[in-house]
Amino acid sequence: MSKTCILAVDLGGTATKLALLNLRGKILKKISIPTRAYKGKKALIAAIQKTIQALLLGNGIGKSKVKGMGVGVPGLVDYNRGIIHNLINIPGWHNVALKDILQRKLKLPCFVDNDANVMALGELVFGAGKGAKNIVCLTVGTGVGGGIIINGKLYRGRSFSAGEIGHIPINEDGPHCNCKGNGCVEAYVGNRYVSKEVIKKLKRGEKSKVFNFVKRLSDITPEVLYKAAKRGDKFSKNMWNEIGNHLGFMLAGVVNLLNPERIIIGGGVSKAGKFLFEPLRRRVLRQAMAIPAKACRILPAKLGEDAGLIGAAALVMENT
Amino acid sequence: MSKTCILAVDLGGTATKLALLNLRGKILKKISIPTRAYKGKKALIAAIQKTIQALLLGNGIGKSKVKGMGVGVPGLVDYNRGIIHNLINIPGWHNVALKDILQRKLKLPCFVDNDANVMALGELVFGAGKGAKNIVCLTVGTGVGGGIIINGKLYRGRSFSAGEIGHIPINEDGPHCNCKGNGCVEAYVGNRYVSKEVIKKLKRGEKSKVFNFVKRLSDITPEVLYKAAKRGDKFSKNMWNEIGNHLGFMLAGVVNLLNPERIIIGGGVSKAGKFLFEPLRRRVLRQAMAIPAKACRILPAKLGEDAGLIGAAALVMENT
Repeated sequence: MSKTCILAVDLGGTATKLALLNLRGKILKKISIPTRAYKGKKALIAAIQKTIQALLLGNGIGKSKVKGMGVGVPGLVDYNRGIIHNLINIPGWHNVALKDILQRKLKLPCFVDNDANVMALGELVFGAGKGAKNIVCLTVGTGVGGGIIINGKLYRGRSFSAGEIGHIPINEDGPHCNCKGNGCVEAYVGNRYVSKEVIKKLKRGEKSKVFNFVKRLSDITPEVLYKAAKRGDKFSKNMWNEIGNHLGFMLAGVVNLLNPERIIIGGGVSKAGKFLFEPLRRRVLRQAMAIPAKACRILPAKLGEDAGLIGAAALVMENT
Repeated sequence: MSKTCILAVDLGGTATKLALLNLRGKILKKISIPTRAYKGKKALIAAIQKTIQALLLGNGIGKSKVKGMGVGVPGLVDYNRGIIHNLINIPGWHNVALKDILQRKLKLPCFVDNDANVMALGELVFGAGKGAKNIVCLTVGTGVGGGIIINGKLYRGRSFSAGEIGHIPINEDGPHCNCKGNGCVEAYVGNRYVSKEVIKKLKRGEKSKVFNFVKRLSDITPEVLYKAAKRGDKFSKNMWNEIGNHLGFMLAGVVNLLNPERIIIGGGVSKAGKFLFEPLRRRVLRQAMAIPAKACRILPAKLGEDAGLIGAAALVMENT
């Protein structure tokens, strides 16, 4: 490999993925290490360093051929200074100057940002956002995160926390959310809440074909609801309908406020295709004002499982 | 007057105000003409032209001393092309190329934008937004409009309709809004809805001192509620509390989404001072995430009644 490439790290609660990409966002090599096997931040940073060096050596790449390294992390980052304030689900990471530490160790330009921002950048540069200037991205999983592109650039806000789209509230008397507010959309569509709702309904006696796919209530995931919906399960279709309506109601407010040209939805639930997107788009068209609603396309994310790595590469592209 | 100055027009449903300002946003001369006295757009445009010419002649100002003219209008404007799509409460204005018409007639650079955007620009350049880069402005009156400043510039969105903050919904089963959606915050805090709510409560038998200020139920305005609250009227204080809570709940979502450094609130209700701002700020602190909530100051607008004119002058500053 003689062409310039980019290093990317997707630091997650379970796995930390590392990769080498070309400038078109294509993954050339990928390695995954188990985050929890490394006790404490020092051990994990050392493992990242070692893996990166192995990745470069093993592929015969000198540092002069590396444009830089992008890192996405699940938590709040002071982007300008490259300091992680704290990570969700990974204990011990408070005020870690990860950018400086990595630059010192690797002698490469490094950039660290929140994973939702990184994914939004990835979709902008290499995915469903290509060519657009004003985009709202969201990822729906356990939590609901987001990133905002304004005039072709990631918008980070006053204290780097912009894009917390999961914590837009949709009901004044809504349920408690773990952000301490109430009625946030995450408390209606986050995986944990959806599972709870499903269990509640089934215990109440509603009929469903989900048990063709899982044995225990606790095994019901959005994927299971998708499989069952595909087989015609009314219960599962109704669940997607509810999720689409809650998300659409919230997104109508975002459409009215930001008049974006695209809304891109990623994360586990986005795989549900028409079961999610049809009721969601219908709700946005019904709830939002006609002009911004018509101006906005609502699309599934394109980058899939490697969105974090491809986005981390886009973070390097943004800066170099 | 030998220094460079700016012309400004604030086209409103009742009055159209015209003014001459200096480059610091100070109004030097002001004239108001009754919008409805001119039947049709041609007559009103001719009146604007005549008044502007009189304003310049009467003050001995040649066109070489005028930087340009800014115009704020109550409706949707294609800002780049200077075309008014339609005006609210002023019939007959559909697809009017006001920018071109005025430029041809006056031989001056002209800029036309939505009045809420114009006010946001005014607060940014000359008012409560000075020195800040990321601001959300809202004006609460009959409707609830807004303007968004991102990185020190007005953000207009894909089809120039960004900032419709009054149509962020706050309750999935909320009342019908005249935008055709439901549960929009405007349907809770817009003057018309507040009046309805007040009348409903009083008819239900709740006690209030508002009748020390007005005789008829239909005369109760936010101003009356403010006066009564100042005299200790519990009913009016509760009304402000409700308005502050609804607005604060919606704004918590905006704080989480945009992480702005300032939120600036103008329009009739903003005069209510602490009666509005105390419950509103409390609700934002309780509902929004800690980091963006702490980063955001919530302030009353500074420009008052002439916000439209001063904002129109800022629109010229933005462009020249």
